[in-house]
Amino acid sequence: MPAMASKRPIVTLLTDFGEQDEYVGAMKGVILNIAPDCQLVDISHQVKPQDIRQAAGFLDNIYTYYPRHTVHIVVVDPGVGSDRKPIALETAHGVFVAPDNGVLTLVNNRENKLRAFLLDKPEYWLPSPSTTFHGRDIFSPVGAHLASGVPIEKLGSPLKSITLFTEAELTISPSVIKGEVVRIDRFGNALTNIAPVHWVDAGTLEIETEPSVKQGKLRFKAASARTSCGWHTVNGIQRTYSESPAGQPLVLVGSSGELEIAINMGNASDRFAIQVGSPVTVQLD
Amino acid sequence: MPAMASKRPIVTLLTDFGEQDEYVGAMKGVILNIAPDCQLVDISHQVKPQDIRQAAGFLDNIYTYYPRHTVHIVVVDPGVGSDRKPIALETAHGVFVAPDNGVLTLVNNRENKLRAFLLDKPEYWLPSPSTTFHGRDIFSPVGAHLASGVPIEKLGSPLKSITLFTEAELTISPSVIKGEVVRIDRFGNALTNIAPVHWVDAGTLEIETEPSVKQGKLRFKAASARTSCGWHTVNGIQRTYSESPAGQPLVLVGSSGELEIAINMGNASDRFAIQVGSPVTVQLD
Amino acid sequence: MPAMASKRPIVTLLTDFGEQDEYVGAMKGVILNIAPDCQLVDISHQVKPQDIRQAAGFLDNIYTYYPRHTVHIVVVDPGVGSDRKPIALETAHGVFVAPDNGVLTLVNNRENKLRAFLLDKPEYWLPSPSTTFHGRDIFSPVGAHLASGVPIEKLGSPLKSITLFTEAELTISPSVIKGEVVRIDRFGNALTNIAPVHWVDAGTLEIETEPSVKQGKLRFKAASARTSCGWHTVNGIQRTYSESPAGQPLVLVGSSGELEIAINMGNASDRFAIQVGSPVTVQLD
Repeated sequence: MPAMASKRPIVTLLTDFGEQDEYVGAMKGVILNIAPDCQLVDISHQVKPQDIRQAAGFLDNIYTYYPRHTVHIVVVDPGVGSDRKPIALETAHGVFVAPDNGVLTLVNNRENKLRAFLLDKPEYWLPSPSTTFHGRDIFSPVGAHLASGVPIEKLGSPLKSITLFTEAELTISPSVIKGEVVRIDRFGNALTNIAPVHWVDAGTLEIETEPSVKQGKLRFKAASARTSCGWHTVNGIQRTYSESPAGQPLVLVGSSGELEIAINMGNASDRFAIQVGSPVTVQLD
Repeated sequence: MPAMASKRPIVTLLTDFGEQDEYVGAMKGVILNIAPDCQLVDISHQVKPQDIRQAAGFLDNIYTYYPRHTVHIVVVDPGVGSDRKPIALETAHGVFVAPDNGVLTLVNNRENKLRAFLLDKPEYWLPSPSTTFHGRDIFSPVGAHLASGVPIEKLGSPLKSITLFTEAELTISPSVIKGEVVRIDRFGNALTNIAPVHWVDAGTLEIETEPSVKQGKLRFKAASARTSCGWHTVNGIQRTYSESPAGQPLVLVGSSGELEIAINMGNASDRFAIQVGSPVTVQLD
Repeated sequence: MPAMASKRPIVTLLTDFGEQDEYVGAMKGVILNIAPDCQLVDISHQVKPQDIRQAAGFLDNIYTYYPRHTVHIVVVDPGVGSDRKPIALETAHGVFVAPDNGVLTLVNNRENKLRAFLLDKPEYWLPSPSTTFHGRDIFSPVGAHLASGVPIEKLGSPLKSITLFTEAELTISPSVIKGEVVRIDRFGNALTNIAPVHWVDAGTLEIETEPSVKQGKLRFKAASARTSCGWHTVNGIQRTYSESPAGQPLVLVGSSGELEIAINMGNASDRFAIQVGSPVTVQLD
């Protein structure tokens, strides 16, 4: 693929290392030593320590926006140094380098053409890797070699399957949708697994009833939906935050197509005691 | 302008999205898809949520340091999805892409040659933009197209004026200067709107009495100024933090030419209960 | 060195400015104005305000991973505007630009071929540098000029010595090793100055008894070491976090070869009241 060769490599980093310490800085040094021309992009380093599901959700919300030749390095790795495997997952939307602990679950479940590899070629790692910082010693050099054009087959051996977690349950019927909060963002907005929801017209919404097979859709009126979460019920679903007065609770379709419970200019999570895992019920009649 | 074409594009990002979440990471993916060679720079993503004046101040303190071909994307956007307009502002010191909510006020007031555009060409946005995340769906693609050389006229229609806020009042007389705190920085230093102040010699300061027209200057002795703010008065104005012993309050000329109330190795905001908006009085006789 | 000229310059930044404010954004503008093609890398901007030893430790843990032509700019600068000198230190592993306040101590003590320079050529600074923000006005332009190929001799005058702090004391005998905690990381792990420690085989560790001259090594059994710190003693030294059940205290060899006190999936610093400076004793018999 000679066209590939002319593209500037892109490497993204998603970790739970925080920005206080120099851990990410060490990873970037390793990467630039191997792939000096690559574009480095930080997705987030503030994943909650060891929260594999949160990292999986972040990744799911960003990877389709990146060029297809992007290498995504994900290091949320509670099992570092144990026998959990380092892996790479090749997809039509980028290559992912990560520990095999479920963090690639959502990418795996969304993509069709997949090839997984066990990273078992130490000649592409730093010499004498530590037992506590595979982000620097294994994942960064492997990601950088991928970015600079080393074929994935050289970096590992084919794997039949990778570790996946069970996604939060979503049940959809003509009268009620039941899901849960999967994330609280910086503004205190509660993002749910009730997704993907799309506007059909100004008053009508549509949700896919079988998300995995992408068929079967349920339509309902935005105005008649009643969403309950924490100790509050919100009537109707809006298009924008600013349709509500400041301080008013609302439900809308978030930027990744998920139902979201928010307060315009306020913090819904604090006010209604909503947490990750809180059940969400949408009555449709 | 063939010389322009050879420069590597630069895109800066200033938002209130925080770094915990993956929102900024999504924006960067969109930008790199359109302008793969651009240099991405984070100004800050920790603007206080929806604080337009703080973002305006940050921008004012950085944009003149950047090359003239830089594109600055600013997304502090409490009205996302409402009828507030997305705009671009072309200046002699870079192009700015932002919601039309006042966040470009200080750039607008400092620069002379300005051209404003309403961003009304959806063919340069992501398809089917969300109603809640224009940073990703409108501002990022428009900024990336600008960075990769699309003329601004193609991205929007000329606008006669943009939304501006009223700057904090500053009154200057030979015996007293009255202003207010416009920012508290990480160190707890209180930055005021008493600016621009310059050192004439080791003992004499000068302030422009008509900042807008850049004429008329007032000179005063640093040693005789008495600055009151919160529940404290500081005698004299110093050149550096280290002229005071650790723990001692002081007033000095900050790095953007503004009077600043600080404590050497300490936190002035906490100790004197100073907040954004606190009045500041400098007695000169 | 014509080979050097073809490399993309790399400039890293390590400061205590935080990411809330726009200070780092201003520095990057200055750098890109002078060295528009350079790769900018953030090491950390969350050094504890004015904590020179922490910054020195961060730098020590990352610089050897970077290409040799990297320029590292370090701005942790409690004495800004005083008579502390701005310096540059050339080593076989990169060039360092910093205030002369001890922040380069560990680099200085690890490297052999060193050349130090006093930065006394204002023609390579911003015009009219402020007295409070040398990071933007002196260190950034000097670092950018170095990155774009200006010889270090043009930027300053040779210095015989630079300011160094005294490293935390480490005493090693066949029966006991005494050191102290030099850092608490984001996970609450306590990193000590008992280093460098290496695994000889699965059960045996080795520590250099004279770290400065790199000769003399002490071997001991991992299983028989008893490490005391705060109000706790841990038996044995492990290879990985995951050898312990969640919540269990452990001691292991950290990613930079230092002994580290941790709790698997927990926070050792909080639980055992361990702080920077807490004494650490390892009984070997």
